[in-house]
Amino acid sequence: MKKVSIKDVAKLSGVSISTVSRVLTGSAPVSKELTEKVIKAVQELGYSPSSIARSLRNGATKTIGFILPDITNPFFAHIVRGAEDYLRKHGYTLIFGSSDQDKNEENHLLDVLLSKHIDGLLFTGSGDSNPKLLRKIEQGLKVVFLDRIIRGVNSSYVIVDNKKGINLLLDHLIENGHESFLFVNGDKNTFSAKQRHVAFMERMKSGKYKHEHYFTGFSYRAGYNFASQFDDILEFDAILCGNDLIAFGVIDALEEKGIHVPEQISVTGFDDIPFSKHYKPALTTVRQPMYEMGQKASELLLLMIKEQLSTAEGIILDPELVVRESTRRTKI
Amino acid sequence: MKKVSIKDVAKLSGVSISTVSRVLTGSAPVSKELTEKVIKAVQELGYSPSSIARSLRNGATKTIGFILPDITNPFFAHIVRGAEDYLRKHGYTLIFGSSDQDKNEENHLLDVLLSKHIDGLLFTGSGDSNPKLLRKIEQGLKVVFLDRIIRGVNSSYVIVDNKKGINLLLDHLIENGHESFLFVNGDKNTFSAKQRHVAFMERMKSGKYKHEHYFTGFSYRAGYNFASQFDDILEFDAILCGNDLIAFGVIDALEEKGIHVPEQISVTGFDDIPFSKHYKPALTTVRQPMYEMGQKASELLLLMIKEQLSTAEGIILDPELVVRESTRRTKI
Repeated sequence: MKKVSIKDVAKLSGVSISTVSRVLTGSAPVSKELTEKVIKAVQELGYSPSSIARSLRNGATKTIGFILPDITNPFFAHIVRGAEDYLRKHGYTLIFGSSDQDKNEENHLLDVLLSKHIDGLLFTGSGDSNPKLLRKIEQGLKVVFLDRIIRGVNSSYVIVDNKKGINLLLDHLIENGHESFLFVNGDKNTFSAKQRHVAFMERMKSGKYKHEHYFTGFSYRAGYNFASQFDDILEFDAILCGNDLIAFGVIDALEEKGIHVPEQISVTGFDDIPFSKHYKPALTTVRQPMYEMGQKASELLLLMIKEQLSTAEGIILDPELVVRESTRRTKI
Repeated sequence: MKKVSIKDVAKLSGVSISTVSRVLTGSAPVSKELTEKVIKAVQELGYSPSSIARSLRNGATKTIGFILPDITNPFFAHIVRGAEDYLRKHGYTLIFGSSDQDKNEENHLLDVLLSKHIDGLLFTGSGDSNPKLLRKIEQGLKVVFLDRIIRGVNSSYVIVDNKKGINLLLDHLIENGHESFLFVNGDKNTFSAKQRHVAFMERMKSGKYKHEHYFTGFSYRAGYNFASQFDDILEFDAILCGNDLIAFGVIDALEEKGIHVPEQISVTGFDDIPFSKHYKPALTTVRQPMYEMGQKASELLLLMIKEQLSTAEGIILDPELVVRESTRRTKI
């Protein structure tokens, strides 16, 4: 689209470009007469309100960046929707990018978003450190970590109590007579997978329960491949999965082996994405308040921007056990 | 983040702000000596390359807007991912917004995106006209319509052959002995639902088949509510659904009524979102090449921007029949 330029404004108002610039940026005083001419031309040409002029004026672009692993995972799509709704209500727009949990892609996205002069960043990254991001935070970039935090930074975050989530699942399984557990976890370099691993091993250290733990990836394919290739899977009473997508893959692979869920083995997920309720069997899982996570993180970020805080607070949301049909019940 | 401002550059280089502006925008000649001072200050302060300065210089923001119904529908999340990957490869960033198929929200989003000086727009709208958008197109806004087109505009689009999709489904059902059809379609104000309706009625006009058609909404809830409340549903051999989400809702409501799919009635979807393969029963549906749609639309849009075309071409992609377990087979 042919945009109205500062030149057009200068021409119509009969003043120099630098005078227009002074009026728009407030960088130096301009006489009332000339100011009025410029404003009239600006209005006539529809040059205002322009986000670019506003950016020059107050350094705010009203744009928030969001780096996340993959928008096609419903867990992230729902977080994004929560962020989007909150931010739009407050006059902000969201730019996002999928990193596929690739560190280089994350850093590339960071450069791209910074070149857009975002006012702040929502970040769901991989790994447990990111020197480049830390440097930007030290230089003043406002960041809220979502779902995953990284080491060495005292920043705001919104996460779910992963330890509690794992314990809710194990309580439910143990109460229902399960005594041996196979944990098919997600990507080993992610904060959430690591927290869940630690919580699981802590609970297992009593030595009362047979158990094994594996890191795979947070995808249907990872769950399917793991369960297809794992021999003697029926030595376990239950399979805990790192997220719902992994659980779907595990259940489908078991079915192909002729193993019935939950009659022969129980399977649990993590997240409660909308499809889990309608899976056959409907999935027993731990609900993360995805939409709320996106909202809360955006609220924190706008607070940090408005009040010029380098950090606001860390919010740990409660997960909720959702018992459905993929786990065997010994009592009602 | 405290951003380096044009004032800081002026101060460090010892020239006026208007001189800095002239150097950055190229709006008027500046002596070589002063230009070098400004460039040195710009580099020292890390004020370059700035997308805002670039915007002033060449009117391009390298930002594409995308207005779509709802990012939490996997159909759109996969289209977005296709667009995102293509655009990023070409140096562009995506800003998007969910409209919930609300016309006012669509127009509000349009204002927001235009205020960001987007270079072009991908648009999946509701209704069959939009005077405001048409005006913007006449004024030079580059738009590619995705999945849905509107009347009165000779613009670029990427859609799927909806007529062919419906006929593929009906061929499959009729070949397998189905003779009566209930069509639970999506939102009546959308292009795709209307096209599918027309295709269905055309095929039915021979009078050979008992049939009924209803517009509902493109959601699980709409399908579930419809099938829950529809009496004598077994008078039909098959239920065609406007998309996969509707089909999931219909199947679940039928199950609650004790009706077995496909033994007692066949159910089909439209889209082939990734969960449809793993639904129980796995869904017979029509695959839309979602990721490719996002890619193609982005390719057209960048072509229009680069070549300053008001329209490029219309692309109609082929849908593909995917036969799974939700339809009864009378022959192999």
